[in-house]
Amino acid sequence: MSSPLTITIGICGFGTVGQGVWKHLERSRALLETRLGAKLVLARASARDLKKKRPVKIAAAKLTDDPLAIATDPKIDIVCELMGGTGLARQVTLAALTRGKIVVSANKALICAHGAEIFATARKHGGHFFFEASVAGGIPLIKALREGLVANRFTRIYGILNGTCNYILTQMEERDAPYADVLADAKRLGYAEADESLDVDGWDTAHKASVLAWLAHGMWIKPDRMLVEGISRITPADFKTAATLGYGIKLLAVITRDFTTNEISVRVQPTLLPEGNVLANVSGVFNAISVTGDIVGTTLYIGRGAGQDATASAVISDIADAVALLRHGKGAHHMGDDAPAPCADCRLAPPERIRSRYYVRLSVKDQPGVLARVASVMAKHHVSIASVIQNPSDRIGAASLVLTTHESDERAIGATLKHLAGLSSVLEPPVLLRIGDFND
Amino acid sequence: MSSPLTITIGICGFGTVGQGVWKHLERSRALLETRLGAKLVLARASARDLKKKRPVKIAAAKLTDDPLAIATDPKIDIVCELMGGTGLARQVTLAALTRGKIVVSANKALICAHGAEIFATARKHGGHFFFEASVAGGIPLIKALREGLVANRFTRIYGILNGTCNYILTQMEERDAPYADVLADAKRLGYAEADESLDVDGWDTAHKASVLAWLAHGMWIKPDRMLVEGISRITPADFKTAATLGYGIKLLAVITRDFTTNEISVRVQPTLLPEGNVLANVSGVFNAISVTGDIVGTTLYIGRGAGQDATASAVISDIADAVALLRHGKGAHHMGDDAPAPCADCRLAPPERIRSRYYVRLSVKDQPGVLARVASVMAKHHVSIASVIQNPSDRIGAASLVLTTHESDERAIGATLKHLAGLSSVLEPPVLLRIGDFND
Repeated sequence: MSSPLTITIGICGFGTVGQGVWKHLERSRALLETRLGAKLVLARASARDLKKKRPVKIAAAKLTDDPLAIATDPKIDIVCELMGGTGLARQVTLAALTRGKIVVSANKALICAHGAEIFATARKHGGHFFFEASVAGGIPLIKALREGLVANRFTRIYGILNGTCNYILTQMEERDAPYADVLADAKRLGYAEADESLDVDGWDTAHKASVLAWLAHGMWIKPDRMLVEGISRITPADFKTAATLGYGIKLLAVITRDFTTNEISVRVQPTLLPEGNVLANVSGVFNAISVTGDIVGTTLYIGRGAGQDATASAVISDIADAVALLRHGKGAHHMGDDAPAPCADCRLAPPERIRSRYYVRLSVKDQPGVLARVASVMAKHHVSIASVIQNPSDRIGAASLVLTTHESDERAIGATLKHLAGLSSVLEPPVLLRIGDFND
Repeated sequence: MSSPLTITIGICGFGTVGQGVWKHLERSRALLETRLGAKLVLARASARDLKKKRPVKIAAAKLTDDPLAIATDPKIDIVCELMGGTGLARQVTLAALTRGKIVVSANKALICAHGAEIFATARKHGGHFFFEASVAGGIPLIKALREGLVANRFTRIYGILNGTCNYILTQMEERDAPYADVLADAKRLGYAEADESLDVDGWDTAHKASVLAWLAHGMWIKPDRMLVEGISRITPADFKTAATLGYGIKLLAVITRDFTTNEISVRVQPTLLPEGNVLANVSGVFNAISVTGDIVGTTLYIGRGAGQDATASAVISDIADAVALLRHGKGAHHMGDDAPAPCADCRLAPPERIRSRYYVRLSVKDQPGVLARVASVMAKHHVSIASVIQNPSDRIGAASLVLTTHESDERAIGATLKHLAGLSSVLEPPVLLRIGDFND
């Protein structure tokens, strides 16, 4: 046997994920070298603060504060960009790709903002960009979409893509606790960032939806062109009302394509899911994704969507693919390099035309005639009521009115809500949730 | 751009799956050719009966009754072996691999019986053997295990791997219908074969468990060395009793490895699963697999495990991998060729040492003192009782006694059951189910 190939790896960003990758590569080196048929050298890592105490130890000589020095190091074959952000991370990524290196990334925000540039740079210079860890953490979802399900056209992909939000929603439901209290706990436990908005307002989910939509349909759809709503206005009472109706509530990304019109829709919204739906029962920090292909039908994937270990597992799987590629020489082709077939006549469905059933919660004056007024507003906008539940409210003299509708669209429901908000008997801005009648 | 590579495909076996692959390759040819960067030629198919009317049409000139003619045809790059069986299928597979071709297979029975020979032949002659469709149909599980989760050591893999059994169990539970009635319906609907034993006695699941155990642990464990039990003695009453205890009942393959002793255990048994476990709620013909890795934690995969379309989706994904490989030339390496790292000091856990909690159902004479006698027998064998439920029986003068135990092992429970069966107050051979206290 010839002596095995030696592959040299650099880690840019030595935070939670970077340390996890370093630790597991060190620990599992023998196993991985056998599995991959190559010798793995963990050459260097970069961190902003060289003096900081970290749980994972690294020789001082291997640590630098300059990630670009790693990205441009001619001895390094694989650069893991685990810094996050879209500034320096972009520079590091492009510098490595320009040199024909393989970049392994967990950075959904970067891909969402600069994906087209990144993939074009990789193609131009014979570099490769792998990103299994960017969506759904340890679940090998990206490989499933682009390789395992390659025969399929994807009519619908939806899922729980943000573990922080799912943790908060699960706690609110199980403990009957208000959003603000659960959020404060989540911060204390390290499940939510000090600035929580990226998670709870839906933007992190939107970044991931953008990556999945591109993979599935070959079209870059940025979050500013999607309907994106967060979870901060949901109350414990909403979970009880939803349960009465037979539903749970999850923050979902939903990506659909109509293959007759080639309209694609992408949205991120808290959604009522039938309680018999497996995703309605996925709790805590887990992610879960339902993928419907025209041949395979619906397949479902569940696992930890974030955290040091699950993310490291995904990063290492990309490193393994990179090693397999390098065994053919750097110029080799990898299935992961195939940009999804671009869809010439695809277009984004206008958000206002997206159809759904709706859950509308109103805080109204507790007096006669209010329901009649609300109902007549909805009728005026041709939104048909499916059910009405009235509950006492915490607010004196007020009642909570929950209406579900038959199928309508975002334009009609938007106009309805605006109209309702202007009624003197409606005391607070209405809360709108979508009803996702997905049975699988 | 250079003209694209032309890849020629032959299909051995033109039954349900073979026709599905042909149909979907024809329909999706343009999409696949774009995705794969190669021209695909569907050259030939083989069928035993050339005259038979089939839903999928094929030019008479492309159909042969000699699958070996396809396997040995020098123009054919990829041979799909979709005939089933372990005789002619083995010949076809070896003939193609000996010629350095790529074989795509859905044949778990063949892999289980002749896997070592098949992989050795592929290695020796530069052929490749892909088998995503052999386990869990449309779910890209094999790719997940060997690529997506490559960083992990698998402590536990368990799942529902046979859609026919899961359909029967679901119907029994939902319709409160006896096994024999549901089986007859399943045969009429085409969900069960005329000879159902391969499915309902657990052997098909055991073949798949064998493939998964090899992938995960590098050790071939044949069904005759596993504990394999089927579903035919389960009654609708068992579902009710299990529900009272907070469990559902599923036919599971369970593969565990203790990484301190390197003992591997593989078993196929109807198992009580906590009703909060996602798998307990997977109904009908679906498959579901829980995979626990030391880094990623538990990931879960659900989808259609059989049927024309789901299986075709998996076969076509293997064809796509094969095309990617052929772009590097036939001698190229593919991750799928890496036999799992063989484990020198692994050994099969002796079945009698496998530990579990147990569910024992006895049909006993309805008279005083019987429970005392049963309890004393269990105590004699050091099997500790956790709960007792006594129900009336359909049989006059009899009662149904269900005991659950604390953890014990197969040796002790086996001796207990033998002893109990010999009591004059026990009217029928005891029914034994395992309790799988898996929370994820």
